[in-house]
Amino acid sequence: MRVAVPFDAVDPKTRLSPVLDPAERAAFARVLLDDVLGALTRAGLRPTVFATAALGDEVAADVVVDDRSLDPLVNGLLADGGPDGGPLRDDPLAVVMADLGLATPAAIERLFDATAADGRDADLGLAPGRGGGTNALVVRDGDFSVDFHGVSLRDHREIAEGAGLDVVEVDSMRLSTDVDEPADLVEVLLHGEGHAPEWLRDRGIRVAVADGRATVVRE
Amino acid sequence: MRVAVPFDAVDPKTRLSPVLDPAERAAFARVLLDDVLGALTRAGLRPTVFATAALGDEVAADVVVDDRSLDPLVNGLLADGGPDGGPLRDDPLAVVMADLGLATPAAIERLFDATAADGRDADLGLAPGRGGGTNALVVRDGDFSVDFHGVSLRDHREIAEGAGLDVVEVDSMRLSTDVDEPADLVEVLLHGEGHAPEWLRDRGIRVAVADGRATVVRE
Repeated sequence: MRVAVPFDAVDPKTRLSPVLDPAERAAFARVLLDDVLGALTRAGLRPTVFATAALGDEVAADVVVDDRSLDPLVNGLLADGGPDGGPLRDDPLAVVMADLGLATPAAIERLFDATAADGRDADLGLAPGRGGGTNALVVRDGDFSVDFHGVSLRDHREIAEGAGLDVVEVDSMRLSTDVDEPADLVEVLLHGEGHAPEWLRDRGIRVAVADGRATVVRE
Repeated sequence: MRVAVPFDAVDPKTRLSPVLDPAERAAFARVLLDDVLGALTRAGLRPTVFATAALGDEVAADVVVDDRSLDPLVNGLLADGGPDGGPLRDDPLAVVMADLGLATPAAIERLFDATAADGRDADLGLAPGRGGGTNALVVRDGDFSVDFHGVSLRDHREIAEGAGLDVVEVDSMRLSTDVDEPADLVEVLLHGEGHAPEWLRDRGIRVAVADGRATVVRE
């Protein structure tokens, strides 16, 4: 199983600007990446980071600098048969977003197990993200391609249907939570099991009671 | 297993006011309730609805009219040993919110299975909701009590810890999604498996592409 983790190293996490300044957003994006890599590694996987710019040498994974945007990058990896080559049927390609701040080895294993249920490998496994996103996928068929713009989960279902692929979707709150907006930090603070919750707390970011769902404040 | 579904029959779903008028909100709350009851029933459970006012006789479950608010209601059920009486250890009480528009029998079974993992029944099973909520719980110990105000998931963890209870939390996007705000309708439209998606589509509510996560528009 080849696992690609795309990472935007240039001005990441702009929607967190209400609570984090640019240097903090860059640092926090790296903390989230490290947490995702840690969860993948503890799940027995060996991820490769595809970063849009050099990251320094302290990353606990192989790093490939590739300035393509997400769709051409992933579709290129699919066309190549993945980062190490080879046909997808025998050696599937997984793509996991770098900002899944609630990822755990168990949640990641559920995605991979779901695609291999009943002794038959599904052509495509999807981890839906909130708001119609796609937060992780496992591809075993070269007729699939990605389109992360718009309502990507719907697009990915349609692309798979058009290619006649079997699709499974994993029901995981952890994998559904990409960290883009201030409200997502509530989830990290309440459920994160990596370093991100402590990083946020060290900067005074706290869960606050709101009228409906909880939100965050910075002290 | 006794299963209580509390239902606010008086002016429900006020945070959906931007897209639904009061009569529509009342009708949609009933559609969500019916979907939840359907999922519970297909999971082999026999839910009892605790409604704050009479619902008419077309509900596919036993209905008890009880005008208590959520905390006194659930804590009363816990003190009683549940709607049919009996000690919680032998006959646990489950509480499932009536607005889990993505609930499926499989997701519900995961909650119950999680509390019985490794052959040992956990004292408390929780299904976290987004934004710090608690969307479903299974209680096997009378030392637990609920507090749904504020960040209820954190409060429930603390109450359980104070009572020395074993807690498991189920990792389910479906159970984490209560339907309170217009953005939640995106999840219903994309993932709902009951009647709620069709109800919304019949009223012109569609998923729309936004800058970040998808949103809804009404045509």
